[in-house]
Amino acid sequence: MVEIKYPVLLINFKAYRQSSGRRAVELAKIAEEVSKERGVTIIVAPQFTDIAPVAQAVEIPVFAQHVDPVSPGAHTGHVTLEAIKDAGAVGTILNHSERRLRIDVIDEIVKRAKELGLITTVCANTPEVSAAVAALNPDMIAIEPPELIGTGIPVSKAKPEVITSTVNLVKKVNPQVKILTGAGITTGDDVAAALRLGTVGVLVASGIVKAKDWRKAIIDLVTPMVS
Amino acid sequence: MVEIKYPVLLINFKAYRQSSGRRAVELAKIAEEVSKERGVTIIVAPQFTDIAPVAQAVEIPVFAQHVDPVSPGAHTGHVTLEAIKDAGAVGTILNHSERRLRIDVIDEIVKRAKELGLITTVCANTPEVSAAVAALNPDMIAIEPPELIGTGIPVSKAKPEVITSTVNLVKKVNPQVKILTGAGITTGDDVAAALRLGTVGVLVASGIVKAKDWRKAIIDLVTPMVS
Amino acid sequence: MVEIKYPVLLINFKAYRQSSGRRAVELAKIAEEVSKERGVTIIVAPQFTDIAPVAQAVEIPVFAQHVDPVSPGAHTGHVTLEAIKDAGAVGTILNHSERRLRIDVIDEIVKRAKELGLITTVCANTPEVSAAVAALNPDMIAIEPPELIGTGIPVSKAKPEVITSTVNLVKKVNPQVKILTGAGITTGDDVAAALRLGTVGVLVASGIVKAKDWRKAIIDLVTPMVS
Amino acid sequence: MVEIKYPVLLINFKAYRQSSGRRAVELAKIAEEVSKERGVTIIVAPQFTDIAPVAQAVEIPVFAQHVDPVSPGAHTGHVTLEAIKDAGAVGTILNHSERRLRIDVIDEIVKRAKELGLITTVCANTPEVSAAVAALNPDMIAIEPPELIGTGIPVSKAKPEVITSTVNLVKKVNPQVKILTGAGITTGDDVAAALRLGTVGVLVASGIVKAKDWRKAIIDLVTPMVS
Repeated sequence: MVEIKYPVLLINFKAYRQSSGRRAVELAKIAEEVSKERGVTIIVAPQFTDIAPVAQAVEIPVFAQHVDPVSPGAHTGHVTLEAIKDAGAVGTILNHSERRLRIDVIDEIVKRAKELGLITTVCANTPEVSAAVAALNPDMIAIEPPELIGTGIPVSKAKPEVITSTVNLVKKVNPQVKILTGAGITTGDDVAAALRLGTVGVLVASGIVKAKDWRKAIIDLVTPMVS
Repeated sequence: MVEIKYPVLLINFKAYRQSSGRRAVELAKIAEEVSKERGVTIIVAPQFTDIAPVAQAVEIPVFAQHVDPVSPGAHTGHVTLEAIKDAGAVGTILNHSERRLRIDVIDEIVKRAKELGLITTVCANTPEVSAAVAALNPDMIAIEPPELIGTGIPVSKAKPEVITSTVNLVKKVNPQVKILTGAGITTGDDVAAALRLGTVGVLVASGIVKAKDWRKAIIDLVTPMVS
Repeated sequence: MVEIKYPVLLINFKAYRQSSGRRAVELAKIAEEVSKERGVTIIVAPQFTDIAPVAQAVEIPVFAQHVDPVSPGAHTGHVTLEAIKDAGAVGTILNHSERRLRIDVIDEIVKRAKELGLITTVCANTPEVSAAVAALNPDMIAIEPPELIGTGIPVSKAKPEVITSTVNLVKKVNPQVKILTGAGITTGDDVAAALRLGTVGVLVASGIVKAKDWRKAIIDLVTPMVS
Repeated sequence: MVEIKYPVLLINFKAYRQSSGRRAVELAKIAEEVSKERGVTIIVAPQFTDIAPVAQAVEIPVFAQHVDPVSPGAHTGHVTLEAIKDAGAVGTILNHSERRLRIDVIDEIVKRAKELGLITTVCANTPEVSAAVAALNPDMIAIEPPELIGTGIPVSKAKPEVITSTVNLVKKVNPQVKILTGAGITTGDDVAAALRLGTVGVLVASGIVKAKDWRKAIIDLVTPMVS
């Protein structure tokens, strides 16, 4: 399994037109440059179809955005952990608010990912769900109140108690799980607040993908992470 | 909220022909008789369409087998907590292996059930999922390895370590949650083993529904529960 | 199979609070009175939990709002055709925009419903989907552009070409299927337009359920259907 | 839209280990060689993660195995038509028995695919579902009785009446749709039978992917297609 150095900026490319195909590779390359310049871990999560080209173009960690709970075999139109690994991914996001999973499926995928040496970041919408996810032993949890996703209103300002409550509950259940803050993050201030509240990084999508200047946006976000 | 006295026998009628319609009422009445004679709590969980007739016919607690994560409103073909309560149910099974739910949905339904004074019994397939569910604060968890459901091979004999591991993990996360043993339970011996391993009751379906003599089968199962 | 005399008013109770539990029975009784007084077929589709009490209280046809594609057996939390029939339903709505179904599942349920003598009304959102559904041989199709559902803007006025195009396409594929108009129907004028455009009835939910005076609302809608 | 010359051999790589990653490219190259040598159209459908590498390596048509019903935007873990097109696909399989779709979703994706110049091949399990799909105007339908998929028992021998009935029903609804035979195809004889029964090609997965000698297996299957 690839060793992740925290804090972390995890960029979810979603299915945005701006971060698809050739542009996925461009965005990943800029993330790689900033990561090297500032010494901060940046993980990129492009669409399934872009994992292979992105993983060939950059050396920073590449994640999938989701995988299906199936092993290789007769599964038309499904995405296996083996397939994303073949394509060059070292981990995956799971249970994003746009792709929620059954509780038994998260358990199954997290266990199989460990066997394959793949990293898992499981999203959660409430402190209770975060604590529940922690019991399944993923590597990271991203706490994201869905009502703030894509709004530009940072959870760290709008609902700081959601973050602190998550940190407390998760620590009790499983202190080894790393916690990221998601939803509404667009500035370095938001990141600084996320770190202050006890999380070790952020999960960002539109805040970077839709920025006019990707390089500037990424630098802004990682600056509070530079030790 | 109805107060449940433990230990408990929870009978899932599933969609079996033998426990549908008029026969659902008959089975519930026999369960009620045995419950009163032996002083053991028996909960019956008939199909949605049978909740109202069953709840009118008996005084023992009636559960639904599932509810959908929606509030009353424009939701064609969905089952709300309010609807099962109107029909006379005092609680519901959730996340059965034949009706698994998303982790955020379990969180949402358990929270809304508490507001409405309804009891929740959430099924789980592994010790880790049981611990995860415990973080969501349901009233009961039923640990049921799906590969044993309907086999007549009791989990308490085939995989006792699944039960003890569940009991240990759940206690650490949330000691207030009651744990039931499910899957493969058909005899009083299986129930005695389930109680010995630290759980406070059993969840049974085919073991009773498919028995030739319902009364005899229920008496056999509750006998080890008589204090 | 119960013989349906057209035109038809099909009332979908959805999961509205106003048409749940005891109030479901009240609404069904008013529908029955108007049906008898005016000699127009009115079908009521209450929630699963209300089918049995409603079917016991009235003699007009009762439908379910949905069924699951499973036969009786080990299916926790599912609704079978047999269960709704036991409860007194003579048919079911399928594929409502709030409960869409897979194409193979509609085929399977329609075929099994025929074997059991149950009537099927399959909803469709476009003329093409209506034509596709017609090839599966249901008894009725309800064409409902989802963007108009619950708006009070009748499809017969806002998009009459959707209705006429549906009527034309369905006739080519399967002239025996009866077509209902749905979405936004609230007045007798809307019903008159629906009949003029070549359909043989309407599917209504909020237009009746949310009306202050149920009796008056139903009378208004069936008046254009009186021959 | 790429012009397809019929008859056609469509190879579904599924999520088989044997046809993943580097081996997906190898299999596609062999398919391309045979296609050029024999002058028969061969389409390859690798996993999402393999579309880009395969499409870069070969000039024969590349299909996806499935797409999700979403436009580009905030859709984590989804596969858009735009994404598969960016990656080099010219079409997609839809509604495979291992990835069934809602009827309205097939309608939506087929319409959007046409706008984007992408070809659609929609699978169907029965003659009635085939006729229903035909009403949605896809380019091709693949009739595949699911009980025969992966068995090596060709539908053209085991259930020829399913094929002929499909051909008849589809022709009545929409004579422009091309029909492929799927399920259990492993030999040239099976392909010859499929063509004789009125279909214009075959959809094959394990019959080729699991063959010891890919080249030989493909040659065997396309030989009856050589005009």
